[in-house]
Amino acid sequence: MIEEEGARFSASLYGSRAMTGKIDVAQLKQRKDSTGISMYDALRDFGFNPDEIDQARRPDGSVKAFLELHIEQGPVLETENLDIGIVRSIVGINELSILVKGRQGHAGTIPMHLRADAMDIAAKVIAQIADIARAVGGGTVATVGSISVKPGGYNIIPGEVEFSVDIRSANAEQIDSVEQRIRELVDVVTHGSEVKCEISNLMKIAPVQMAMHIVEQETVIAQNLGLHSRMMSSGAGHDAMIMAAVTNAGLLFVPSLAGRSHCPEEWTDYEQLQKGIEVYLHTVLGLAEVVN
Amino acid sequence: MIEEEGARFSASLYGSRAMTGKIDVAQLKQRKDSTGISMYDALRDFGFNPDEIDQARRPDGSVKAFLELHIEQGPVLETENLDIGIVRSIVGINELSILVKGRQGHAGTIPMHLRADAMDIAAKVIAQIADIARAVGGGTVATVGSISVKPGGYNIIPGEVEFSVDIRSANAEQIDSVEQRIRELVDVVTHGSEVKCEISNLMKIAPVQMAMHIVEQETVIAQNLGLHSRMMSSGAGHDAMIMAAVTNAGLLFVPSLAGRSHCPEEWTDYEQLQKGIEVYLHTVLGLAEVVN
Repeated sequence: MIEEEGARFSASLYGSRAMTGKIDVAQLKQRKDSTGISMYDALRDFGFNPDEIDQARRPDGSVKAFLELHIEQGPVLETENLDIGIVRSIVGINELSILVKGRQGHAGTIPMHLRADAMDIAAKVIAQIADIARAVGGGTVATVGSISVKPGGYNIIPGEVEFSVDIRSANAEQIDSVEQRIRELVDVVTHGSEVKCEISNLMKIAPVQMAMHIVEQETVIAQNLGLHSRMMSSGAGHDAMIMAAVTNAGLLFVPSLAGRSHCPEEWTDYEQLQKGIEVYLHTVLGLAEVVN
Repeated sequence: MIEEEGARFSASLYGSRAMTGKIDVAQLKQRKDSTGISMYDALRDFGFNPDEIDQARRPDGSVKAFLELHIEQGPVLETENLDIGIVRSIVGINELSILVKGRQGHAGTIPMHLRADAMDIAAKVIAQIADIARAVGGGTVATVGSISVKPGGYNIIPGEVEFSVDIRSANAEQIDSVEQRIRELVDVVTHGSEVKCEISNLMKIAPVQMAMHIVEQETVIAQNLGLHSRMMSSGAGHDAMIMAAVTNAGLLFVPSLAGRSHCPEEWTDYEQLQKGIEVYLHTVLGLAEVVN
């Protein structure tokens, strides 16, 4: 699966989204990396024909099941000394981009009362986003992971600030509640100001359940292999949540050292990986109705 | 004068600071641009020998006067329909860099109460900086013009955020007061948090007076030429404030269209520039004791 993380174009899961017919040519042209190159142009440069994106779509009924083996990316399995996490549900994800438009100017010659400082307003919004997620509760998380400032000189009042907001929860209503409170906060913070905010939705994926017969099969096989497992929900998005719309999906976790992920310290021992692979070997044999 | 703005290396006035002996080799090696190239290496690549930076220093008494003609970069002259601003003092500037160190992690799998989110803490500080400048008053301004986030992915909790703070005032005590309040704010915001802040001072320049006999000469000449002028202080830093430490310095403003500067709309008509040049032609002739 390509582009699961989506770091370059700040939007993820393109491989599975293309396979399930959720990407069109207009989206490929719209999404650009930090240097202004669109996905459309990047695909063409790699030798693909982006105009034929529809051909990535798999026909209905053509995929029997989709199984995904992943590291947990969290501390639960390691803390509880378990081998396998059997994922029952994956949290929903809402990716927002908030563009704050002020008026650029010299940092020394414009008195405070004549400024329209995009950074000041952006910071007043960002400063409350984690608190909003905590207030909504129920395991809901919100993260501002990227920000860019134009023009970005230390002696220039920012004319434009753009930042991302990543909201996740196993409960769709809690995700909507965080977005709603952020929108209200933006209205309050920009009220009476010359600074304006535009909120756009880059990606919105509802919480997803894994196929119950696969979850049951994974549980029995882990037990038969003498492995220690537990049911859990996934706080990270995965291709399995996209594929679940068109086929039976399963997702299995193996432990992450200290729960670390998306950083140089990310690690899972080979022996731990092997246990996950063995559970899925037998799951595939079972789904394929091969005696094992 | 090279590198007055200092955009590439986020620290300004290098030409005049070198001429007045305020730059050493260690500083050239320490200051780096966004790609990690030091001023030391950049100078060498341009064909200079950075180890001989001391040779840029002008001997004491070797400079009779330093005159600087600049656009106002603010709206005062245009608003009052004047030709010339005769600068009596230049505001002091304090450039801080604040490095916020948290713990990087996956945006979906780390619950809110286990996070050390550098962006959350940075935003809580930045959100109050403009308000602090307003509270201190007396024309004091503060600006956060640049910010960078590591690693910067929308689905990663930031491990590190670094931002600049530019503080200016004609009153040195007001500058110190803003810095002090920011330091207290940082203590309050990081209290009990795993996130830590390091504050470093990139540049600190006290408010500076222009030489009184030059100010008087500029005033008389403008009047003799039939130009409309006023006394003012400069909200922007200029090489004249550095050179004032070693010689008699003067600074003259011509109007800026709509007070805009450091942006594509920056503009001064040629006729307006000419009036400033004429005042300085006669000021130079006077200082050189040529009859005019």
